[in-house]
Amino acid sequence: MIDIALLKAGNRRALAKAITLVESKLDSHRDQAQQLLEAVLPDSGKSIRIGISGIPGVGKSTFIEAFGKHLIALGKKVAVLAVDPSSPVRGGSILGDKTRMEELSREANAFIRPSPSEGALGGVAQKTRETMLLCEAAGYDVILVETVGVGQSEYEVAAMVDFFLVLMLPNAGDELQGIKRGIMELADALVINKADGESLNLATRTQQHYQSAFHLIRHGAFWTPRVETCSALNKSGIDQVWTMIEDYKVQADEHGAFHGKRARQNAEWMKKLIHQMLERRLTENPAIKHKMTELQAGVIDNRVTPYNAAKTILDLL
Amino acid sequence: MIDIALLKAGNRRALAKAITLVESKLDSHRDQAQQLLEAVLPDSGKSIRIGISGIPGVGKSTFIEAFGKHLIALGKKVAVLAVDPSSPVRGGSILGDKTRMEELSREANAFIRPSPSEGALGGVAQKTRETMLLCEAAGYDVILVETVGVGQSEYEVAAMVDFFLVLMLPNAGDELQGIKRGIMELADALVINKADGESLNLATRTQQHYQSAFHLIRHGAFWTPRVETCSALNKSGIDQVWTMIEDYKVQADEHGAFHGKRARQNAEWMKKLIHQMLERRLTENPAIKHKMTELQAGVIDNRVTPYNAAKTILDLL
Repeated sequence: MIDIALLKAGNRRALAKAITLVESKLDSHRDQAQQLLEAVLPDSGKSIRIGISGIPGVGKSTFIEAFGKHLIALGKKVAVLAVDPSSPVRGGSILGDKTRMEELSREANAFIRPSPSEGALGGVAQKTRETMLLCEAAGYDVILVETVGVGQSEYEVAAMVDFFLVLMLPNAGDELQGIKRGIMELADALVINKADGESLNLATRTQQHYQSAFHLIRHGAFWTPRVETCSALNKSGIDQVWTMIEDYKVQADEHGAFHGKRARQNAEWMKKLIHQMLERRLTENPAIKHKMTELQAGVIDNRVTPYNAAKTILDLL
Repeated sequence: MIDIALLKAGNRRALAKAITLVESKLDSHRDQAQQLLEAVLPDSGKSIRIGISGIPGVGKSTFIEAFGKHLIALGKKVAVLAVDPSSPVRGGSILGDKTRMEELSREANAFIRPSPSEGALGGVAQKTRETMLLCEAAGYDVILVETVGVGQSEYEVAAMVDFFLVLMLPNAGDELQGIKRGIMELADALVINKADGESLNLATRTQQHYQSAFHLIRHGAFWTPRVETCSALNKSGIDQVWTMIEDYKVQADEHGAFHGKRARQNAEWMKKLIHQMLERRLTENPAIKHKMTELQAGVIDNRVTPYNAAKTILDLL
């Protein structure tokens, strides 16, 4: 069993065990995990949750290491989690190798958790949400959720954090067209990394380019996404990133938007879970599964209307 | 009752009555409508379905009138339907006024159907899908589904047509950034309308601009979206638009992609309907509705985990 008192006291071993329980796929563990989560719920929610995304090669781990150490120097406790849909395919979790963040992982006030190499994105993301609650109960003030810039993972992560930050490389303005659609809408900030040496000028131009692009797009009531530059390698500009996030927090609180956003996220998560559970009922019921295959073939061959097929399935539920 | 033989013979009055039945909200009509749809299903599916979108002012009705008349001159029968989520708000369906397409509406081989001023987007779109089947059974070769470039309607329409065409205005290249995200991914073609008079050069520049943007984006196996120019007013370039769509059809058929896409759309529609029906069961059950409100409040206040809330709802179903 998990020692909740130890967990709340910030014991890292208790936290790690709790996360393992939450990640377990055993049905018997699922109920235990939910009891644990209900128990720590009153102590959760006190961190700031920051999503960090960016394509491979942008320097995510170097940035997180520098950023995490900066936060620890300010007296914070920092947890780093990962949502990594690519791991089962590419054969290696983005955080699987702790040595990627060697210095940070040696800090007493840092907690780094590799993502489970599960596969189903929804599953990983769901565990990450619950893992955040556990980390918060264990006293972590800042939770960094790292994700790679592929597939749906950015949407998943943006839907569970307070602030979504996208790391980018210094790049010519024309590349703007190539930016993944939707990312400009998700991001609360872009941070142009590797703004050092010969790339310094290019980084500044890139910054201006994206900043004006952001001004063209409609945003929420109070915050226009900002574009910062930094060099994670040289540890320059890292402090400004944190200042910006603190600034966001102050403004969001003033507008009641910080807790408003979390409430919305939780309500949406609940709805999503309802749909997932319904989906599971549909796919796990052998009779429905069989009928579904049959009806789907009929729909594809134009023998059955989708409406009648759907109705037949519903009547079986 | 609907005379199916008359409908199949192409009688427009029978078709109009059939559509009215399908659009009816009465429960007793719903079953009749589904029987009718099952009956005409073997005769449906033989048209090419073309979605036409574009912001207000782009000249959609002038284009559809010119395009429709061109098709009729080629011996086709043309149906024009509308998916118009804006009508209940703005107080007028985009096709409510048939005089908008006065010449086309006088053609014996044209059938223009205003959208029902219903409201719920999914509802309108669902009726449009079913209306397409009826038009096909009545012998229409080309079905044009018109939508305004707002909200989710473009996604809905793109998911039910074979070819999705977006009308645009001649515009400076810098406007590219302002283009609605996602539209570049949905479109099989952009058509720059009003390529006439003083705007001719600008239209050509706009065409080049978008065409190179399309080359930057990854696409399906065989088709890179094309960008054409036309002047619906002067009836120039209209024939090229049709030639392009015919070309698409040939290529899609060669790759088995034409029927593959429809099969996928039907299978997805079926799944969507299952979810809609499940959703209706959840929202129409008073006990669930009551509990949902209560649990949602708990989730927002951090008293209940979304997981447990979802589980409670499922147990009530």
